[in-house]
This record gives sequence, C-alpha cells and structure tokens, in this order.
Amino acid sequence: MTEFELIARLTEGAPREAADLPCGVGDDCAVVAGPHGRDWLVTVDAFAEGIHFMREWANFRSIGRKALAAAASDVAAMGGLPRFYLATIGLGPGDEEGAAGEIYSGMREAAHENGLVLVGGDTFRSPSGITMSLTVVGEAGHGEAILRSGAKAGDGVFVTGSLGGAAVGLASLRSGKRGGACGKFVERHLEPRPRVAEGRAIARSRLATAMIDSSDGLVADLCHIAEASSLGFEIEAGLVPFDPDLSAAAVELGIDFNDAVLAGGEDYELIFTVAGKSLPAFERTAKEIGAVRIGTMVGERERREVRGAGGEPLAVGPGGFDHFGRKGGS
Amino acid sequence: MTEFELIARLTEGAPREAADLPCGVGDDCAVVAGPHGRDWLVTVDAFAEGIHFMREWANFRSIGRKALAAAASDVAAMGGLPRFYLATIGLGPGDEEGAAGEIYSGMREAAHENGLVLVGGDTFRSPSGITMSLTVVGEAGHGEAILRSGAKAGDGVFVTGSLGGAAVGLASLRSGKRGGACGKFVERHLEPRPRVAEGRAIARSRLATAMIDSSDGLVADLCHIAEASSLGFEIEAGLVPFDPDLSAAAVELGIDFNDAVLAGGEDYELIFTVAGKSLPAFERTAKEIGAVRIGTMVGERERREVRGAGGEPLAVGPGGFDHFGRKGGS
Repeated sequence: MTEFELIARLTEGAPREAADLPCGVGDDCAVVAGPHGRDWLVTVDAFAEGIHFMREWANFRSIGRKALAAAASDVAAMGGLPRFYLATIGLGPGDEEGAAGEIYSGMREAAHENGLVLVGGDTFRSPSGITMSLTVVGEAGHGEAILRSGAKAGDGVFVTGSLGGAAVGLASLRSGKRGGACGKFVERHLEPRPRVAEGRAIARSRLATAMIDSSDGLVADLCHIAEASSLGFEIEAGLVPFDPDLSAAAVELGIDFNDAVLAGGEDYELIFTVAGKSLPAFERTAKEIGAVRIGTMVGERERREVRGAGGEPLAVGPGGFDHFGRKGGS
Repeated sequence: MTEFELIARLTEGAPREAADLPCGVGDDCAVVAGPHGRDWLVTVDAFAEGIHFMREWANFRSIGRKALAAAASDVAAMGGLPRFYLATIGLGPGDEEGAAGEIYSGMREAAHENGLVLVGGDTFRSPSGITMSLTVVGEAGHGEAILRSGAKAGDGVFVTGSLGGAAVGLASLRSGKRGGACGKFVERHLEPRPRVAEGRAIARSRLATAMIDSSDGLVADLCHIAEASSLGFEIEAGLVPFDPDLSAAAVELGIDFNDAVLAGGEDYELIFTVAGKSLPAFERTAKEIGAVRIGTMVGERERREVRGAGGEPLAVGPGGFDHFGRKGGS
C-alpha cells in the first residue's frame, strides 16, 4: 500500500467540503473560508531524518530551510500565497539544543524569501533522529485555489522550470560526487525553492484547471491529477524541460536520464493543466513564468502514456518518490 | 533551557500581531482572521513515543485519541470551538501499516466527541518509534478568544474539574498498579477529555480575562498566565479541587499528594482568571461548568505563592511537566 492509498483509506468518510470548508481531504491543502471573501489554505508536511533527509548530507540550517520550502510548495501548488507557519521539531537524543536554533534559522530564511511568518510551535526531544512537522497557512481569493480535480479531457499539460535536477542531486549525494556538473544539482536537492510567484501568476490568470507540485516525480504527480479528475494523459518525454548540464551529470553518475526527469522527486516545480480553448490566452503567462506544454489530458482513464522521441511508449511506472519508505526517499 | 525558553528565544522577532493575525506566537493557538467577523485559532502539538507516551501502556487507538484530545485542548484553552484537524503520523520501523489505521480510529473517536473533522494529513515511516503532529483549527467570535496575557491584579483564579488525576494515573502506569482506586486515574491519564464546552461557556460569558489549559501542571501553567500578564499570584492549596479517591491512590502509590495536584501535568482542565468586579456575575457560569476559585492574581511579578492549610507557603517549583524531556514526561 502506498502513502496515497493509505491516506485515502484512512480518510474515507471524511467530508470533502462544507459551507466554510470549500475543500477537505485529498488535495495539496485543505481550503477553509477566510475573511473578506478570501480563503485560507492549510497544509501539513512531515520531514524526518532517514526518510526525508540524511543529516550526513546537510547542515541543520539547510534541513530547516528545505522542510519549510517543501511545505510552502503545497500552497504554491494551489496558486496560494504562503502567510503563516507553525513548526513542531523533535531533536535526536544526541543533538544539542542549538540544533533547534539552526533549524529555525534555516526555516526563517525560507520564510523570509516566501513571505511567511512563524505563529506557533512545539519542540520536544525525540528518541531517535530529528522529526519535523510543518503547518503552513496560505491565502487565496475565494474560489481561486486550483484543485487537482478540475482537469478536463483535451486540456494541455504544462510544467514550470526544469525537472530531474533534485534526483540527480540526490544521486550525487549518495555517490559522494558533489563537484563539477553535479554541484548545482546537489543544491537543487538540498535547497529547493517553492514556485510561489509562478503559482500566483497561474492562479491570477484564472486559466488553469488543475495543479500540483512535483514532489513525487512528474509521472506520479500527474497521476494524482489524472485520478482526481478521472482522466488519463499523454505526454512527450522530449518536451519535458531539463537543465542543459543534466545529461552529462547523469552519465557521470551512471543513472538513467529518463528516470531522473520523468520520475525523480522533489523538484517542487508546478504541474498544471489549461483548457484547450484557453491555450492562446495563456501563452503570455506561460512565457512570463517559464512554463512549457508537455502533453494533453485524455478521456480514457487507463491511458497514462509517456512517449519517446520516435513516438514509442516509455516504461515509466507511476511509482515516483514514495515517502512511506518504499522507494527509500532521500 | 526549558521548552518555553527555547521557543521564546527562537521566535524572537516573530510578529505577535498583524491586521489579519490578531495573535501570533506565544499563546495556546495563533489567531487569524476568519470569515463573517469570526477568528480561526490554529495550534500544533507533537506527540512522540518515549516522550509523550509509552506504547507498553496504551494501544494505538488510545494513543491517537489522546494526541487529538491534547491538541483540541489548546483550542478549548482559548474558549474556541474545535473544527478541523490535520495529522502527520510517523510509524516505527516494526509497525504494521494497520497501526496507522488504529491511531486514526482513535483520533476519529476524539474528533467525533469534540466536533472535529479531518481535512488533511501526511504519513511516513519513522526510523524509530511513533511520532505524531496534530494541527487543529478552531473558531471563535472575533476578539472572543481568551489570551494568556489579559489578567489584571486582583483577578480571581479559577480551575475547572479536578487536578492531579492524570499524574496519579501516570504513577500507576509506571508502578504497574493499575487496579483498585488507581484504575480511573489511569483512564484519566490515557484518555483525557478536553474542556471544550466549559471553554465555550467561559468565552461566551465574556467575563474571563486570561485562560490556559493545565497540560504542564497547575503552578507551571499559572506561571504562563502570570508571565504573559506581567503579574504574580497567590493560590491556596486547600481550595484546589481533586478527586475524592486521589488521596488514597497517592498513598498506595507512594507519591506526594500536593505534587500531583499542584504540579501534575496533562489533566487538560482550564485555568482562568476573572476580574474582581465580575465575580458576582460569573457565579452562575462557574456553577454550571464546575469551576472553583483557588486564588488571586497580584501585582508583584515575583510573588508566586501557594499557601497550605495553615497559611504556610508550600514549596512547589514552577517546573511542572516539561515536554523537552527534562522531567521525563509520560
């Protein structure tokens, strides 16, 4: 059972909406009614040593920074503006209390860059390693938050930025090769930047029908949109954007380039859909935020196709990056 | 350094209020503006194996139940109505995935009793034991939430219910004596009930000036009100309410009765203050919710006095129950 199946099973019967709860379980954030016709977006994200990070690879500051960036990305993934955060931090038995200060200082960096302020927290001594849970509250205009479930057959599939960098950075850390072409990908893995401005621009355009962030990998995350929208998809691997140095780094590290780009997790780019008839109107926004079209949503739910350069289907499972420990994580 | 000192240091410079953030860091919940002139109260609470609970003493269901009750109590402590919750659950390496289902079923029990619905979550495999973080969102009328900082010199100090039961229950679990008079205190420790209805009644009376829940122990929690309000206090040990069987159980377990009642944590009763001139008007509410007056807030900040039956000062430190592991916890 994957994390998604487990959560789906556990939250069966939980309400998906109510008068002041426009969106409950099952999206990047829960949406609750806010003041002056606005909505609050609320999300929680766990970040645990040995599962989501290895302390050998990062200092406390960058661990805190990444934890908050990942949680804020859930707000970006709905087109919201991150506002407040609360943090629970469990320190390991051997950690000095100064470690909590360094983790907070990393969170403050990411908070400052993304407009977040700390409003609460809880700190404890964990029997094993460091465990964090970040709650982020964002805001959006009422009804403006972009759910995973709004895509329609024929919608174009877009992604921002470039994919695969964080996976290559993770492979660099695992192999110990951190220099040369690998350096920037290590930074991409350790200090991701949530696409807040891009998400806001997409939401303000009012042209996107569904959105998610790429935390589990392109194919896995697109599967979440497909499932929530009861659709399938066709994407072309050759259209998926990647860093010009990615190929050389993948060769150096001996990892599969397609796997990194199509299934590598934690890039925190935005994956979203735009209705066919809105594509011309969306062109300017796409250019402004550096988003490119990589495929199309289709009516057949079982169709989840990634095509190679010659039109041949590529075998990329929807497994992606599973935080329940099955695929290991970072 | 205690947890409180650590959080205070780490959150230095974090804003305490803003236009849509009536109350930031430093109270039971952060208060953010809600729709229709109401406020949302947001709180997070960590609950980790070996620190906040021992799996030998409780089943997964009751662990989930207590975690949510404790988090909901933070909303009760401001007079709010709990509404939504989000949970992150890390399972230990040896735990079957069914454990998460049992933890959720316990949370659902407490949720049902307290009017909460699940709106989001995150589940992962923890390298050591079970680690949970609960985010609870409650609501209150705008400006209705009762902060810790509103007490004035001369205000009466009140508590609901009875104190010391959870501490005696914890001592029972530690000693292995779970039968006889100890049984009900074990239940009090393992399955506490947040004082939501009492908190609402206190808030609706509009007569309370400050409030907190008794999670760290009466004296320690009253010290939080005193610090936030820049005051001292005088309470009479003989006025503090306790269960009629508590004394016999304390003798049987060989623990200090005064320590249990005055410094024992996790009863999740409400401790609050009412202005001297409002005391007659508050009498009916006090009777309805079973709250009794135990002392008075005083202007001298350094005065934190607990008097025994003969008027003699009792030596009870403000240490109470520290979740940072110094005093061990449950």
